[in-house]
Amino acid sequence: MKISELSRVSGVPLPTVKYYLREGLLPAGRPLGRNQADYHEAHLRRLRLIRALIDVGGLSVAGVRQVLGAVDDDVVPGHHLLGTAHEAIAGVSRADRSTAGWLAARAEAARVVAARGWRVHERAHALDQLADAIAALRELGQEDMLTLLDGYAEATERLARQEVGLVLARGDRAGMVEGVVTGTVLGEAMLTALRRLAQEHTSATMAP
Amino acid sequence: MKISELSRVSGVPLPTVKYYLREGLLPAGRPLGRNQADYHEAHLRRLRLIRALIDVGGLSVAGVRQVLGAVDDDVVPGHHLLGTAHEAIAGVSRADRSTAGWLAARAEAARVVAARGWRVHERAHALDQLADAIAALRELGQEDMLTLLDGYAEATERLARQEVGLVLARGDRAGMVEGVVTGTVLGEAMLTALRRLAQEHTSATMAP
Repeated sequence: MKISELSRVSGVPLPTVKYYLREGLLPAGRPLGRNQADYHEAHLRRLRLIRALIDVGGLSVAGVRQVLGAVDDDVVPGHHLLGTAHEAIAGVSRADRSTAGWLAARAEAARVVAARGWRVHERAHALDQLADAIAALRELGQEDMLTLLDGYAEATERLARQEVGLVLARGDRAGMVEGVVTGTVLGEAMLTALRRLAQEHTSATMAP
Repeated sequence: MKISELSRVSGVPLPTVKYYLREGLLPAGRPLGRNQADYHEAHLRRLRLIRALIDVGGLSVAGVRQVLGAVDDDVVPGHHLLGTAHEAIAGVSRADRSTAGWLAARAEAARVVAARGWRVHERAHALDQLADAIAALRELGQEDMLTLLDGYAEATERLARQEVGLVLARGDRAGMVEGVVTGTVLGEAMLTALRRLAQEHTSATMAP
């Protein structure tokens, strides 16, 4: 299909499609002449993935480039791809990670993970993110919130078995790779939305 | 304490403290003279809450103003405050919410919630966010991911009972109000970080 049709079918405005091409997020089409190129189903699929990551996942163009680079690199092991997806979605923390309070929270985060026997990289970004939240709660004198950590860890471990199992069940590498990316980004969006709805319902039910 | 001490104790740079004062996020101190004011423990506490919402929760200054406005308004019912906190943290969706695919996903989101007997506002933002993710997964041909919805709903409902129970147990209105805000924002940060760690562990364990 022509680039105009790619734009029409995907619903992505033509200047945006051209921008993704220039930025290297979308691979070039097959040249048809001086000013034309031919695009295929794979381009449409890639374009939809880019839009989902940006529009629903809130990733930056740089984050998308990082994730797609790992997706397209056949030698990146699936495990590493998960880390890349996590990193791209993580955003930039503005917490001060040099205070004594934060370092204590970082040690606490490592203990929570070790207590469950989780094998994670000792420098995983998510450990720093967990420490950000723990340090903030302690500084606010809201340590009671930390009693939720066990329940969160148990729930996420049970869900992770379903999530990883689902992706592995796909069998083919391309499907698994896409599953890691969308499962990380869109799965998080689904979980977050449902958490808010569950809280609204529960608060309406339990509040005096 | 003087504003310089407020800055020192909180670790927030003086120009930033002054900015929060100008923006009305931080209430003015008690005037001590022409150019001085006296700040108290309550200012320090508020300053720490602002930093946690911005640094860990990723809220904008406008989002913080919205949340703190509800916190300070004594007539806002706790239930409404939860909605305000959710709205402030939601960010701006860039998904096209006018397509037939999105409208079908929105109906699907409403069905998921109704099937669990959840009582939520029919125009809750989180229903739109859930629809964003469902629509994106369908468009990507990754409907298999939607089988995760039930597990997510069950887990978030169980966690919400702990979360809401914890906040209600605080008893005093001020504590409950702060608990809603930090539980929403920092609780989400903790849950998200733990989900990533659980996925990393599970993927290392289950992958062939």
